[in-house]
Amino acid sequence: MTKQKLHIVKIGGNVINDDGALRSFLKDFSVLEGFKILIHGGGNKATEIASEMGLKPKMINGRRVTDKANLEVVTMVYAGLLNKKVTAILQQNNCNAIGLSGADANCILANKRIVKDVDYGFAGDIDVVNSETINMFLQHNIVPVFCAITHDKKGQLLNTNADTIASEVAIAMSNLFNVELSYVFELKGVLSSIEDENSVIKEINLQKYKQLIEQNIISDGMLPKMDNCFNALKKGVQKVKIGNSSLIKKTTDLYTTLSLR
Amino acid sequence: MTKQKLHIVKIGGNVINDDGALRSFLKDFSVLEGFKILIHGGGNKATEIASEMGLKPKMINGRRVTDKANLEVVTMVYAGLLNKKVTAILQQNNCNAIGLSGADANCILANKRIVKDVDYGFAGDIDVVNSETINMFLQHNIVPVFCAITHDKKGQLLNTNADTIASEVAIAMSNLFNVELSYVFELKGVLSSIEDENSVIKEINLQKYKQLIEQNIISDGMLPKMDNCFNALKKGVQKVKIGNSSLIKKTTDLYTTLSLR
Repeated sequence: MTKQKLHIVKIGGNVINDDGALRSFLKDFSVLEGFKILIHGGGNKATEIASEMGLKPKMINGRRVTDKANLEVVTMVYAGLLNKKVTAILQQNNCNAIGLSGADANCILANKRIVKDVDYGFAGDIDVVNSETINMFLQHNIVPVFCAITHDKKGQLLNTNADTIASEVAIAMSNLFNVELSYVFELKGVLSSIEDENSVIKEINLQKYKQLIEQNIISDGMLPKMDNCFNALKKGVQKVKIGNSSLIKKTTDLYTTLSLR
Repeated sequence: MTKQKLHIVKIGGNVINDDGALRSFLKDFSVLEGFKILIHGGGNKATEIASEMGLKPKMINGRRVTDKANLEVVTMVYAGLLNKKVTAILQQNNCNAIGLSGADANCILANKRIVKDVDYGFAGDIDVVNSETINMFLQHNIVPVFCAITHDKKGQLLNTNADTIASEVAIAMSNLFNVELSYVFELKGVLSSIEDENSVIKEINLQKYKQLIEQNIISDGMLPKMDNCFNALKKGVQKVKIGNSSLIKKTTDLYTTLSLR
């Protein structure tokens, strides 16, 4: 039997931080046909709120360290403020969204990252995505909206990278669906020249990816994102796209499609 | 066909504010047999966070006014921090909880309270509780955990009294279940003498309720709570209890049971 199609879309800071951009994106997302899941990052709101509360961000090697106070802030901002805002706007657009953290209905189990050289605090690495529960929501025409908070089933909430949540949810759901995973970020796609916003590389396979790294065209922050994408493809996700928020519109064909070969 | 039993339990500030009391209560709640729903208030955490963020609470006639900034805070604290904490602890206790606001899966629709003499801001009065969706969760052995945030399906989140959410959810679910609604608060029940914590009035019917008001034994903050209780009974809820957190244990029989006659 042919599997049905499932769209999984991850939005990041550029959409979440801008009220107008967010509303416009959510309108487009609402009219996407068929099964779909939304995953959102946190944007800069958590840093703002933490700063208003007098907390200073802790960074080690450019990565945020989630201590107890900062975990409270990201739980409030990601699972509360942003997740419910997104859910309410989708409901307004007649999309029957349900806002979820990984703790809700035990959807995403993670473990606190083991301390090696660096203690990242309450950062979670994903163990299990409960695809059956998520599928149950989809079969009831409910659209899951995940924020970047998971749990360890020992009572501990954990801050978890939203790109990774997207790829892990996509991998788990690919047992049941033909999954198309879209990463929405600030650019129109992976660019061959950072100075030309239209220099989108339309297709990147694994071989080309290695070349682009060697040529230093893909570097820094794009590396973990691309690794997440290829990891998803290797583990059963059918299609991965990267582009800006018009990526999910039928009228756009300017984005990057990733494939294994 | 006899309806199945559904326990709906509302906890307030005295449980939510005290980490030890909360964990102990949630352990007891987890072992409650059969269908169940938890509703939690906000406690004093929202006031603390608002104050840390430099917001001053706005009160009119002793009631909190929810302006835009305070709505953001209660959304963060109720739907984020507290709701996910409660959910994660229930998951730890093998209770398959799902944390919900009224916006999630469109469970609770409200409207912004109409401005008459006083503008309470983003305060919501409940219009519809979607009992079918809530029942769908229950039939999948998922335990809904509601915080005191609803929405108007026009994209607006609303701050809503948790006691009222409890009674409205109980009323809506009583079409499908024999509902027992328990209000957990700081006292062992309705007291005949405020100076004696054990002077619990074990049964109060509507006639006795009127007497107790005349005798000034029930007054002030207890009045809206009791009105919620009797409203629930009048509209189909089978049993309403008021007491402290040991109310849900089988070993306790010291609490107040309300009935119509």
